[in-house]
Amino acid sequence: MPVKTITYTHKKVHIVDQTLLPGELRYIEIPTVAAMAEAICSLRIRGAPALGIAGAYGLVIAANAVSSSETGQIREAVNDAAQVLKATRPTAYNLFWAIDRMLNVMNSSSHESAQALKQQLEKEAGDILAEDMERCRTLGRHGAELLPQEATVLTHCNAGALATADYGTALGVVYAAKETGHSVKVFSDETRPLLQGSRITASELAEAGIPVTVICDSAAGFVMATRHIDAVIVGADRIAANGDTANKIGTYALAVLASAHHVPFYVAAPRSTFDFSLASGDDIPIEERAGIEVCRGFGLQTCPENADVYNPAFDVTPAQYITAFITEYGVFSPPYASSLLKLQKR
Amino acid sequence: MPVKTITYTHKKVHIVDQTLLPGELRYIEIPTVAAMAEAICSLRIRGAPALGIAGAYGLVIAANAVSSSETGQIREAVNDAAQVLKATRPTAYNLFWAIDRMLNVMNSSSHESAQALKQQLEKEAGDILAEDMERCRTLGRHGAELLPQEATVLTHCNAGALATADYGTALGVVYAAKETGHSVKVFSDETRPLLQGSRITASELAEAGIPVTVICDSAAGFVMATRHIDAVIVGADRIAANGDTANKIGTYALAVLASAHHVPFYVAAPRSTFDFSLASGDDIPIEERAGIEVCRGFGLQTCPENADVYNPAFDVTPAQYITAFITEYGVFSPPYASSLLKLQKR
Repeated sequence: MPVKTITYTHKKVHIVDQTLLPGELRYIEIPTVAAMAEAICSLRIRGAPALGIAGAYGLVIAANAVSSSETGQIREAVNDAAQVLKATRPTAYNLFWAIDRMLNVMNSSSHESAQALKQQLEKEAGDILAEDMERCRTLGRHGAELLPQEATVLTHCNAGALATADYGTALGVVYAAKETGHSVKVFSDETRPLLQGSRITASELAEAGIPVTVICDSAAGFVMATRHIDAVIVGADRIAANGDTANKIGTYALAVLASAHHVPFYVAAPRSTFDFSLASGDDIPIEERAGIEVCRGFGLQTCPENADVYNPAFDVTPAQYITAFITEYGVFSPPYASSLLKLQKR
Repeated sequence: MPVKTITYTHKKVHIVDQTLLPGELRYIEIPTVAAMAEAICSLRIRGAPALGIAGAYGLVIAANAVSSSETGQIREAVNDAAQVLKATRPTAYNLFWAIDRMLNVMNSSSHESAQALKQQLEKEAGDILAEDMERCRTLGRHGAELLPQEATVLTHCNAGALATADYGTALGVVYAAKETGHSVKVFSDETRPLLQGSRITASELAEAGIPVTVICDSAAGFVMATRHIDAVIVGADRIAANGDTANKIGTYALAVLASAHHVPFYVAAPRSTFDFSLASGDDIPIEERAGIEVCRGFGLQTCPENADVYNPAFDVTPAQYITAFITEYGVFSPPYASSLLKLQKR
């Protein structure tokens, strides 16, 4: 997986502009907090773990932009940036988790100099990125053990290298399966409206030499009924303490269909996606995005002007439909009331 | 519903080119059998009942093109056209039903003159069209009685005026509900890959003053879970003797989701969509269409070149998921082994 979703070198943050895929793999510089907020809102960078890293580096950008040697001014700038970045997208928990982790580091010790404070923020963001790389690989290996030697996986949206630092959660399982000698192929839902499944997941997998077949989201049920699918594996944007899981719109329908076809339904996510402060999925905020993504997503008007459009970006899959969670700490199965409590303590 | 899907005046056949919707409502002339075959293959005209009418008029075009006064030459041209038109799309039964009805008329009596034979074919095609208008209205009234006074309906693809002569099957129920004083609103799946739900259904309903909200296909499950849906109503392309129903890809997933949410799932179709020669849906041929509809449907390449695409145009919904069939002969409920036998005898 050679693509790095986000890089930090010589004090500059670059990201892959994912809106240009699959046509073009272009890195763009993110010079300001406002540019990072725009990149997040526009889904130039997306995927819950990647959003965590983006949020962390957004705060590094804010700190570095302060020329004063007053640490108080840096703190103020970072706190302001945290507010801006937390307001970009409401559902993915990693964004909040990473920003809070950065703020905790900033607030937990008094720094002697502006330089020291900036360095510590840089280091923490770097740690968040490096840990993501390591955790996705560990998670992937745990997940691969759940798959048969010859495995056909169905996935939705993109929970791959470009949704994380560089490896992926749901696709991390697929990559790890390949690395450990499985023969694995993937059906990828195209994932309307923004087509992360066809634009990004299919590109990643094809690039990695893993056979991938793109289907319309609505074909997933028919594929489950007429082909052998060993597992549905998806990522997550936020997981409540009881296991209810918010993920890209359509995930819930897939989970119901998987249940009806007796296909295991796995959610692959690092611990940082679990929001243990929420008792259930009822409390997860669901982002509703502009209807134009649906009705003019390709430059052409595909709905009449006088029709309404409802465009929820996520849905919530009740824990009862989830066969297991695949995390960097292993696989967590029902009953989640007790198993996820163990994860919380890690 | 002022739009006529297909017209025949002064010996000329015109159809609405549905590929141009919602941007433009353009009638195009269909001068030859080859042009009709192309229009059917390209979905310029689509929808099972409309395809029946198109097939019938394709044979009228074939007959009228023969300048000879030999009825034998007309018969040959019509038989050749029947072969060409039957080879266009395999799933929608009405196409075969209407063509066979035309051939039966041609073969059931000896015509004294070329003129008489042409006139009889014209009359039969006109009858098929006129009967469709009447049957859709009758079907619609039967279906409307199933809906509450304030009804929210979810539909998929387009089973409306433009899928029939001028009124619709699934949307015929919606129109009839409005006409009989119900307050009705509709969620319309956009229906990838060709977006008949957003391009055509939403346009029809908005034009008719019926509130319509377009959603991505993958959002239907979430909508059922979070909004009150009184009924899912879809059309059909072919229905086997046991009630198994082929319809636009995604219908099966909707049916499973409706069942999981205890939402009634109705199939609205005229008797001419029932293929009583097939014992079950296993025998219904499912058209697979070009992957380019999925990966380059809007002029932009949305999949990488090196990914496969699987694009089944239809799926089969087992009868067990269907609450009832709404037909011009009334509503047929389970057990279908006995109830559909009664329909067969009509």
